[in-house]
Amino acid sequence: MKTELIFTGTELLLGHVLNTHAQYLGKRLSDMGLEIGLQTTVGDNWNIMEDILLTALKRSDLIVVTGGLGPTADDLTKEVVCSVTGVPLELDKDALSKITDFYEKRGIKITEGAVKQALFPKGSIILPNDCGTAPGAILEKDGKMIVLLPGPPREMTTMFENYVVPYIDQKCRGREVTKYKVIKLTGISESAVQEKIKDLGGRGNPEIAYVAKPGEIQVRVTARSQSPIEAENLVNQLFIEIEDRLKEHIFGYDDELIEEVTGRLLASSRLTLATAESCTGGLISAKLTSLAGSSVFYKGGIVAYSNEVKEKLLGVPGEVLERYGAVSRETAFAMAHGVRRVIGADLGLAVTGIAGPSGGTPEKPVGLVYISLATADGQFCQRYIFPGNRQAVRQGVSNAALDLVRRHLLGIEIFIDKD
Amino acid sequence: MKTELIFTGTELLLGHVLNTHAQYLGKRLSDMGLEIGLQTTVGDNWNIMEDILLTALKRSDLIVVTGGLGPTADDLTKEVVCSVTGVPLELDKDALSKITDFYEKRGIKITEGAVKQALFPKGSIILPNDCGTAPGAILEKDGKMIVLLPGPPREMTTMFENYVVPYIDQKCRGREVTKYKVIKLTGISESAVQEKIKDLGGRGNPEIAYVAKPGEIQVRVTARSQSPIEAENLVNQLFIEIEDRLKEHIFGYDDELIEEVTGRLLASSRLTLATAESCTGGLISAKLTSLAGSSVFYKGGIVAYSNEVKEKLLGVPGEVLERYGAVSRETAFAMAHGVRRVIGADLGLAVTGIAGPSGGTPEKPVGLVYISLATADGQFCQRYIFPGNRQAVRQGVSNAALDLVRRHLLGIEIFIDKD
Repeated sequence: MKTELIFTGTELLLGHVLNTHAQYLGKRLSDMGLEIGLQTTVGDNWNIMEDILLTALKRSDLIVVTGGLGPTADDLTKEVVCSVTGVPLELDKDALSKITDFYEKRGIKITEGAVKQALFPKGSIILPNDCGTAPGAILEKDGKMIVLLPGPPREMTTMFENYVVPYIDQKCRGREVTKYKVIKLTGISESAVQEKIKDLGGRGNPEIAYVAKPGEIQVRVTARSQSPIEAENLVNQLFIEIEDRLKEHIFGYDDELIEEVTGRLLASSRLTLATAESCTGGLISAKLTSLAGSSVFYKGGIVAYSNEVKEKLLGVPGEVLERYGAVSRETAFAMAHGVRRVIGADLGLAVTGIAGPSGGTPEKPVGLVYISLATADGQFCQRYIFPGNRQAVRQGVSNAALDLVRRHLLGIEIFIDKD
Repeated sequence: MKTELIFTGTELLLGHVLNTHAQYLGKRLSDMGLEIGLQTTVGDNWNIMEDILLTALKRSDLIVVTGGLGPTADDLTKEVVCSVTGVPLELDKDALSKITDFYEKRGIKITEGAVKQALFPKGSIILPNDCGTAPGAILEKDGKMIVLLPGPPREMTTMFENYVVPYIDQKCRGREVTKYKVIKLTGISESAVQEKIKDLGGRGNPEIAYVAKPGEIQVRVTARSQSPIEAENLVNQLFIEIEDRLKEHIFGYDDELIEEVTGRLLASSRLTLATAESCTGGLISAKLTSLAGSSVFYKGGIVAYSNEVKEKLLGVPGEVLERYGAVSRETAFAMAHGVRRVIGADLGLAVTGIAGPSGGTPEKPVGLVYISLATADGQFCQRYIFPGNRQAVRQGVSNAALDLVRRHLLGIEIFIDKD
C-alpha cells in the first residue's frame, strides 16, 4: 500500500519545533509493511496544503496527515481535505458532546473554536482523542484513505496506536510486511562488528544495517514477506547466527536501554548499587533513577567533582590522589570501595576520567576514563579512551559503566584490567 | 526567495534515524529571511527523487538537498540532479586530490566509490567538506540554485555555516529578512504569561509566539523587513515591553539553558554549590557538570535515593523523616543544610519529591516536590506540584531547582514558602 506522510505546522517547517512525528510514523508504518514513498512538511498555508494533498492523492493509497485539527484560525487541515475531495464539512454531535464535557469539567467556557473541532468531512470515521480535545478522522474516498491526526505528540501517538493501527491492520491483511529485530552491543567497535558478520550481509532479504552511538553499536536485521510469520522466520534465522558470533557483546534488543537491562538484573538478583561519579557528574545515577521503581536496587550516590569530596566523603586516601592522580586505576578502586561502604550497598560503581574539552595531557588525554566495580569479595576495573566531545564522552562512559555492572551480574568477565 | 528543502535517505524516510536536518536548516534558512515553502523527505529512490526535484525546480528559487553524496551505490543525488537539469557529471581534480589525500593519510586504499565523490554537475561551485570526504556543491541553472550537502549532521552543518551561509547572504542582499529573539521564563504558567502580554500580540509584524516545556515557557518575538537593522529594531521595541512586564520571571534568552545561566552566576559570584537529590536522582548534577569548567563552582553532590542515605550521609534526623516524611519541607531543609556542611560548599541545594508513576497519595500527590536552598545565613524552600509523567516531573524539578539558585544569587526573592 503506497503511503505518504504530510506534517502540517509552520513551527515544524521553520524548525522552531523538532519534527519527531517523522521518525515515529515513518518507523511504525514501515514496520507494518506499508511502502512509504514520501514525507512532506508544510506550513499552515492553504494553497500549498491543497497542492500537496492533491499530488499525494494521485500518487498514494494511504495519506497520513498530522496537525491542524485544533480550534484556532490557522488550523486548516479538515477544511483543505474537504476542498480537495469535494466532501462537505459536517458537525458530529457525539464529538461535540465529548468536547463540551471536556471544557465543562475544567470549568472553561466553550468557544466557537472548540465547536470547530467537532466538524468533520462527511462520512468520516471519527477517532477519539484520549489525551486532548481535537478528535481525528479517517476519510475513505475513491479507493484512497486519508488519516487525520492531531499535532501534539502525545495525542498523535495515542490516537495512532489505539485507532489507526487496528484500522490499517485490517486493511492490510495479505499484503507484504516488514519485520525486524535490533541487537544492541557494547564494548566493541563498529568496524569490529562488521568484520565479524560481514559475510552474513548482502542477501537483500533478510538484510543487515548498522548504527553507531556513543558507547553502543546497533545491528538491525530486516526481512519482508507476505506472511508475517515467514518474515519473522527470515529475521530469526539470520538473527541467531549474528547473536552467536557477537554474544558476549550483546546487552539488549530493540528499544532496550542499558540502564533498563542492568536495573532489571539488579532487581532480580536482589542486589543494591551505589555510585561514585567524577567525570559523568551524576549522569549514571540520573539514568538509573529515570526508571520507575529504581529505589528497589539503587540506594544512592556521590558526585565527587572535587578531590576534597573524593577524600572526605569517599575516603580516597590523600596519598593515592597525590601519587596516582584523580584519574587513575587506584583512585577508581578507592572510590568504588568507598561508596559501597559509605552508602551501604552490595555493589559500588565508580568512574573517574577526563570529559574535556580541557584537562587532557599527553599521558592522560581527554576521553581517558577508569570504571571500577567493588563487590563484597572483589574488585574490577576497566580503562577506556572514549572518542568525541564532552557530551559523547559522558554518554559513552555512563553506558560502559552500567554495562560493567551487567557483565558482573551475568558472570561475563572479559575485562581488560581485572584485579 | 522561495526555498524548499529535500532530505534524501531511506533511514530518514523509515524513521530509523531522527531527521534533525529539518529543524536545523528550517531554522537557519528562515532566520536568514528565506521563505521556506516545503520540506520533503525521500528515500534513496531514483524515480521519486527525480519527480520531487522537478516539481521543486518549478516552484522554488533555492533548493537545498541533503544526503546521497557518499561513495556507495545508493548515493544518487548528484546523478539525479544531472538527469533533471541536463547538465553532465564531470570529475573535479582538486576535489579528487583532497579525497586521495584524506584516504592516504589514514592508510586506506582509494576505491572506485571514493572517486565517485569527486564527480560534480559541470559548472558547480564545489563546497569543501571540512569534517569528512564527500564535498558538496552549488549548481546555478536557469535562475535557480541547487545546494547539495552531505548527510552526516556534523559534515552538513559545518559545510552549511562555512560555505552556504556566505553564498546565500550575498545572493539575498536587499531582500526581506526575519529577525527574532526568544525570552525564556520560569516560575510562571503559559496562560499567566499570555494574560500579561496578550494586548501586545496580534500586530502581525512584529509578532509573538509561545512554546511551553517542562519548567520553562518561551516567548518568541519575530519581525520581518528588507533592512536587517529595521527588523531588529521592530523586534527590540516589542521585546523591551515584554521584558518589562515579565522581568522577574526571565532566566535567559535565545538558546540559553538554565544550567548555563546559573553556572555563570555562580562562577562570577565565586560561590560554590553542592546538591542533595532525591526524586531527580542526579539530574541536577548531571546538568551542571555537562558544562565545561563546572568544577570551578560545583563541588559535588549526594543522590539520596533512600531514607538511609538521607540520614547517614546528609544527617537528616530520623525523627524529621518519621514525623514529616521524606517528601516534606522539613526534610528538604535538613538535606540542604546537610549537603552544604558535608561537602563544604557555600550553597546547599536539595530536592525531595514524588516523580511517579507510583508513590502518590491524596495528601502528597505525584509531582509534589520541595526544593530547598541553604546558605551561610539562611534557608529558602519552594513547594511545587509539577504536571506530567516521570520524565517531565524530573525535568521540571531540576530546572526549577537551578532557577532557585539563580534567584537567590540575583536577590530576586519571590518564594512561595520562604523561611
